[in-house]
Amino acid sequence: MRAEIIAVGTELLLGQIVNTNAQYLSRGLAELGIDVYYQTVVGDNKERLIGAIGIARGRADLLVFTGGLGPTLDDLTRDALAEYLGRGTILHEPTMNKIWSLFTARGGAFVESNRKQALMVEGAIPLRNDTGLAIGNALSVDGTHYLLLPGPPREMKPMFDNDASAWLKELMGETFSLHSVMLKFAGIGESGLEDLLIDLIREQQDPTIAPYAKEGEVAVRVSTKAADSEEASRKLEPAIMEIRKRTAAHLYAEEDVPIEATIVRLLTEQQRTVTLAESCTGGMVSQLLTTVPGSSVVFLGGAVTYSNPMKIQLASVPAELLEGPDATGAISAESAVAMAEGMRRLADSDFALSITGNAGPAAAEGKPVGLVYVGLAERGRETRVETLQLSGDREGIRLRSSKRALYLLWLSLTGRG
Amino acid sequence: MRAEIIAVGTELLLGQIVNTNAQYLSRGLAELGIDVYYQTVVGDNKERLIGAIGIARGRADLLVFTGGLGPTLDDLTRDALAEYLGRGTILHEPTMNKIWSLFTARGGAFVESNRKQALMVEGAIPLRNDTGLAIGNALSVDGTHYLLLPGPPREMKPMFDNDASAWLKELMGETFSLHSVMLKFAGIGESGLEDLLIDLIREQQDPTIAPYAKEGEVAVRVSTKAADSEEASRKLEPAIMEIRKRTAAHLYAEEDVPIEATIVRLLTEQQRTVTLAESCTGGMVSQLLTTVPGSSVVFLGGAVTYSNPMKIQLASVPAELLEGPDATGAISAESAVAMAEGMRRLADSDFALSITGNAGPAAAEGKPVGLVYVGLAERGRETRVETLQLSGDREGIRLRSSKRALYLLWLSLTGRG
Repeated sequence: MRAEIIAVGTELLLGQIVNTNAQYLSRGLAELGIDVYYQTVVGDNKERLIGAIGIARGRADLLVFTGGLGPTLDDLTRDALAEYLGRGTILHEPTMNKIWSLFTARGGAFVESNRKQALMVEGAIPLRNDTGLAIGNALSVDGTHYLLLPGPPREMKPMFDNDASAWLKELMGETFSLHSVMLKFAGIGESGLEDLLIDLIREQQDPTIAPYAKEGEVAVRVSTKAADSEEASRKLEPAIMEIRKRTAAHLYAEEDVPIEATIVRLLTEQQRTVTLAESCTGGMVSQLLTTVPGSSVVFLGGAVTYSNPMKIQLASVPAELLEGPDATGAISAESAVAMAEGMRRLADSDFALSITGNAGPAAAEGKPVGLVYVGLAERGRETRVETLQLSGDREGIRLRSSKRALYLLWLSLTGRG
Repeated sequence: MRAEIIAVGTELLLGQIVNTNAQYLSRGLAELGIDVYYQTVVGDNKERLIGAIGIARGRADLLVFTGGLGPTLDDLTRDALAEYLGRGTILHEPTMNKIWSLFTARGGAFVESNRKQALMVEGAIPLRNDTGLAIGNALSVDGTHYLLLPGPPREMKPMFDNDASAWLKELMGETFSLHSVMLKFAGIGESGLEDLLIDLIREQQDPTIAPYAKEGEVAVRVSTKAADSEEASRKLEPAIMEIRKRTAAHLYAEEDVPIEATIVRLLTEQQRTVTLAESCTGGMVSQLLTTVPGSSVVFLGGAVTYSNPMKIQLASVPAELLEGPDATGAISAESAVAMAEGMRRLADSDFALSITGNAGPAAAEGKPVGLVYVGLAERGRETRVETLQLSGDREGIRLRSSKRALYLLWLSLTGRG
């Protein structure tokens, strides 16, 4: 079954709200094994709404509407669909009674426009609204299926999860649904990863293999339709094994978690601790680690050494490294090593990561924007340091430096580096 | 001019990400006086994308695409539009050179697929991409205008705000445009601010007064249409003056900047410095301050004291405060005072902010989730401490604690507190 989601509301077209309903419904439909081919947003205008219904009917079997079921003049979805189908509307008595008793209980006068929320397209079956007033609609006409859901997420979500999903399942008479596994990678870019997997991506049929990238993260989703999770595993596992083999140095999780969550888990399992000495990232690594609940067990603390005196005072960097005739300067491999080692000794932690560099916008100490040194001190091992030359803006450089530092720690924690 | 926004990406149809680009562009187009009639989302499929272009051309004069300009096989937008228009693609040399030198600098092999990001539809003018690689496209064919923007918001937003907006303004050749002033507030919530301005918001005609809120920030946009900035000022100023009068303790900027930018500016002007001692916020305040270019002049550094030993070592908190018979514990007003004063003395800074508390998810030291102490030590003044009881999730508590600490510093820097 091919679906199109039609969100109705001028507030969406004005950018006053984000269309989170489309995301929720897309995900929910995918889980039911229904492919969403289009999402459309149209304003509170009957003519344009009817136009959008016509277009959607030509390219989808299931039209899922959200919004426009309320009491105001702007709420046109039900009327527009009825007009498009050449049908009338009928009153849903239980909803009408519910609205009546609500007004009676409040002691207020009944506002006539509220009657609208109890109307349904002729022939539709009602979808219960436990968190609001407007009744939902489900109907099938000439092989096309229509779902009318309210706009407010707190009404839409339970209606979709309950009555609407049940109706869709019955419609399909199927038990097949989409199962997928998200693979997460670090220390590699989107195009680098695609190079490793290019033949798999090109030849994919079932399971499907789709790469994703967002700032600082790369992922691949492997998906298939199956009757149950056992069958799904059987279908997914060969593809996942092949990807594992090719990307062992980068695949840090087989679920959608950031690398900092994997690191907190590994440190906890290994009962080891980490500290940080950050310069150009200004506390970003610290910030990422502490978003993970439970990080306080393994993350002892960090220093944001944004000035030379703080590098000396908080991370025990020797002053002669930073200033004087033999100084290599704050942005140097030597400084990264000193920061990591100084911090690790001070806190007596198992690991210490350090980052020093120039995130821009202008050259500093004669060092170009994007030049960053990442250090990793480890109890009982020699300190490692990596030189990066990154491009992009200040925030991008800071984020990629932070993720790179976490990647180095992950390599060490997993015995890879 | 009537616009349609076409977001391209299967990840949107699968519900993996929310279409925030559509909101950003809708708002931006509205500000230029362009009406958005439809938003469409289509997957990474050339045939369906071409179909969507055909439909959009029939109902809009301006088609704004986001997504599908990257290096992978899935990135089809440029090709689909070229095919629809019966045109070829040409190489944008400066972008190609940029990509080349990036690969050279990294010392890696050039990945051929990256060449794609330098291609443009024949006849298009290039839209600069300062935060990424893929070049944007703008072209007009037979009275329909096309804008091709990248999908990642951090590339799309600056491209739209700069080159794309300039191109649209020229296209419209209009003299009346929307002028607006963004007023930013701290230390007050959305409903608190609305209470102060309720009559102004209700009675607004011209200029319009619209409140906005996002996590940790509250803003009001005052807008009017005018021929030039002089006329705009004349129309906007009375409303802004009235708002200034009512919100003096909270209005920190009359442009869309975060409070950390205002603080870096004030510290720079006053030639004063700040340091930080953060516990539950895990480096977030440090992180916020260092997003501001030039912050290194006034922000000396900070300690993320995520464990008691680090509070003692990095922020000179007396051990007997944290453990032992008379200890008040790490989550206490006393600890906040000691952290701020210890840090300020250590670094000899003019100010030091401290934050200690429980951001959740569970009670700690017997202290409830959301209990947070914020301290402010200042040279020559008594240290102040504020007790917060916040609700919400871990990230929300951390962000609001951070913003509150910055608000306290702002009050002091402006002689308000």
